[in-house]
Amino acid sequence: MEKFNTKVLPGFMELLPEEQIEFDRIKAIIAETYEQFGFTALDTPAIERRKTLLAKGGGETEKQIYNVENTRGGGNEDGSVKADLSLRFDLTVPLARYVADHFNSLSFPFRRCHIAKVYRGERPQKGRFREFYQCDIDVIGKDKLSIRYDAEIPYIIYQVFKKLNFGKFTIRINNRKLLSGLVASLKTDANTTEILRIIDKVEKVTQEDFIDMLHEQGLTEDMVDTLLKFIAINGTSDEVIAQLRGLGIRDSLYEAGIDELETVTSLLIEMGVDSTYFAIDLSIARGLDYYTGTVYETKLDDYPKIGSVCSGGRFDDLASFYTSEKLPGVGISIGLTRLFYQLREIGLINATHKTTAQIVIIPMGDENIHAALKIARELREAHWKVDVLLESLTVKKKFQYVSKKDAQFTIVIGSNEESCGEVVLQFKRGDEIVKERVSTDVLAERITSLTKGDE
Amino acid sequence: MEKFNTKVLPGFMELLPEEQIEFDRIKAIIAETYEQFGFTALDTPAIERRKTLLAKGGGETEKQIYNVENTRGGGNEDGSVKADLSLRFDLTVPLARYVADHFNSLSFPFRRCHIAKVYRGERPQKGRFREFYQCDIDVIGKDKLSIRYDAEIPYIIYQVFKKLNFGKFTIRINNRKLLSGLVASLKTDANTTEILRIIDKVEKVTQEDFIDMLHEQGLTEDMVDTLLKFIAINGTSDEVIAQLRGLGIRDSLYEAGIDELETVTSLLIEMGVDSTYFAIDLSIARGLDYYTGTVYETKLDDYPKIGSVCSGGRFDDLASFYTSEKLPGVGISIGLTRLFYQLREIGLINATHKTTAQIVIIPMGDENIHAALKIARELREAHWKVDVLLESLTVKKKFQYVSKKDAQFTIVIGSNEESCGEVVLQFKRGDEIVKERVSTDVLAERITSLTKGDE
Repeated sequence: MEKFNTKVLPGFMELLPEEQIEFDRIKAIIAETYEQFGFTALDTPAIERRKTLLAKGGGETEKQIYNVENTRGGGNEDGSVKADLSLRFDLTVPLARYVADHFNSLSFPFRRCHIAKVYRGERPQKGRFREFYQCDIDVIGKDKLSIRYDAEIPYIIYQVFKKLNFGKFTIRINNRKLLSGLVASLKTDANTTEILRIIDKVEKVTQEDFIDMLHEQGLTEDMVDTLLKFIAINGTSDEVIAQLRGLGIRDSLYEAGIDELETVTSLLIEMGVDSTYFAIDLSIARGLDYYTGTVYETKLDDYPKIGSVCSGGRFDDLASFYTSEKLPGVGISIGLTRLFYQLREIGLINATHKTTAQIVIIPMGDENIHAALKIARELREAHWKVDVLLESLTVKKKFQYVSKKDAQFTIVIGSNEESCGEVVLQFKRGDEIVKERVSTDVLAERITSLTKGDE
Repeated sequence: MEKFNTKVLPGFMELLPEEQIEFDRIKAIIAETYEQFGFTALDTPAIERRKTLLAKGGGETEKQIYNVENTRGGGNEDGSVKADLSLRFDLTVPLARYVADHFNSLSFPFRRCHIAKVYRGERPQKGRFREFYQCDIDVIGKDKLSIRYDAEIPYIIYQVFKKLNFGKFTIRINNRKLLSGLVASLKTDANTTEILRIIDKVEKVTQEDFIDMLHEQGLTEDMVDTLLKFIAINGTSDEVIAQLRGLGIRDSLYEAGIDELETVTSLLIEMGVDSTYFAIDLSIARGLDYYTGTVYETKLDDYPKIGSVCSGGRFDDLASFYTSEKLPGVGISIGLTRLFYQLREIGLINATHKTTAQIVIIPMGDENIHAALKIARELREAHWKVDVLLESLTVKKKFQYVSKKDAQFTIVIGSNEESCGEVVLQFKRGDEIVKERVSTDVLAERITSLTKGDE
């Protein structure tokens, strides 16, 4: 018999039930929080036209894209064999296409969330995935979009990570207009893109090298001095804003950046975000060509090596390749697969239960199955998730089933109990396994009160 | 500027927000019901090794499979360009691979559900999709699996379709052992596979042709007579079982089939399934090579043209290509994308709300935003989904936003109301739009009581 490889492909995540339950719990918290803010979930195809996906131009994206083809009619639309289809590499390009295509059916500002898998043919390595979940929210405006939405996005992220409970975190906020305005205010003939690129690398080089690189681009001592002062700014949000104003730079873009940062940070406080959970961080850039205003990164304070667990920002025009409508927006994304992988690596994933069932019912003999099914039905009507073991196994194997599943509650029904209208309810209290005989009449009540902890 | 095609690809489903909300509501009911029975959701990669996917052999599947490749390292595991990867065409083959690979980490009987997209390069036509959701449940045993699970599966389907509320439905049940045993009992030298194939086509040919075809295979008058009697059997479950016994066929497989059908139908009644919602239907085969015992189809009584909305059955060995462990199982699948498409075609999808938000808050002026955010926060804490319009729009455009979103409740806050600690709460009562001034102190309460209908 030919042996087939059953291992999951390198670069793909596949979880055991107990880990999957925990992954899904995290995903559900993210989805519920997004929905609490009125974001409607969309679901676009994983396969798109390659040309449409690559509208913005290739580069690294083109190298990583997975192409899809089918030898029959499943290839091109005209039925030819060589397909022009690819798997999506993010959820933003499909959103742009969707909004352009359905423009007249949507109402703006349009809030959408999308939690789904995307595909990138990266070289497999630790913590890098070829298939991974992105959890995106974006608000898309028509012609304009209030800066207030730039505050709502980190407010939502604050709610998500508070609920996820991975410890203290900090949402770092910057505004791309500051640096662009600052460089513009220098009124230098130097290549501004090159200067922005050098500043983006400031943390990776020595101060000496940094100054040399700026001089090489033709910046004067004064100009370099202004840039160094800018980069050195730090403190609370209010302090940073005061220092930014204090530099005395007269440039409308720069000033707009300060005003926007001020609005966003003060709105965050007004919305109820604890001020220790966010900070202005002027070193955040998030790439040089997409975001145009507010940008975000989020780090878990206790695990700085993980890097940003949630990033995004404001963009001027979502779908300029697909429509002439102007669609400014602001959004953010959680890379859930990578985040889960890293949390698991540092031991923060507590995967114990091997079943979604909260209650496992064990009929001791086949003659107890009738009673087991009746109890299961009543408990399900009381909204419990219940697994009844219907297989005829030895007692030993029945209890192996119980211990391997490790559900919160186990109900054992033998003929002795059944004749008294009772069952044995098992659960853990600390490390101890508690067994109680409970009348079937009050079983659902008893389980509820145990869950609430008010025994 | 180059024009990019933004239309969704033919054969792919893409929904507007109001339809997507309804699609997701249906999907959530299916998922919740599966979980109520202790089925743990798995999530395997959409991309698998082509060889592994096609282990069972090609045929129609091979023609429809989507191959995946990437010009860089994302192709083969050894880094070569021509990839050996494909998109999954169902969720059963990945389940077989998963169970074979993680065999020692799972406890049996293993209950898993999987709701995800699969891919088939079919020629696009009405109601046929190249990307579609399957909603699968399977129970997998180790060496053996009790027939009782064959009753639990249609019980779960009964719960799902009762909750989905698409009207009366019938779960049709058969057992493959009956026909196999019947043909074996004939003790003919004829090709039994060919005879099964002819019987499978009984509804598509005239009785005369049917008899001729059986004679051509070498069956005697008596044999044909027995088959005709078998096919003519109908009535309630009890009547059908009595008639099956009445044929007096002595064959252990045939007799096992009757016993199994009897166990399944009597357990269904015991579990609480209304007997008008299921029926034994001896004409169901579900293909000739996969299922070995119980088989299911489900039809909506009022919409017979839709065909089976949920099908499955018992199989002897899930993963014989991947492991020497014997893994019998029973499962069923709902083809959700096709079902949704067909329900929409016949007008059964009632998509109204264009937002997930239950409440939309409209601050009349920028000065009311502070109050709007405060109310939004309180309502979210009371578990409502709330969208606050943060854009500064004209009054006309603000009310366009309200009417386009069509949320259940709208809260309007102007300075007049705000100064009295009140808001205007709007909602529909029949076709009438009701407006009430409500104190912010009792707002959450008022909305809750309106939702419960106990005004």
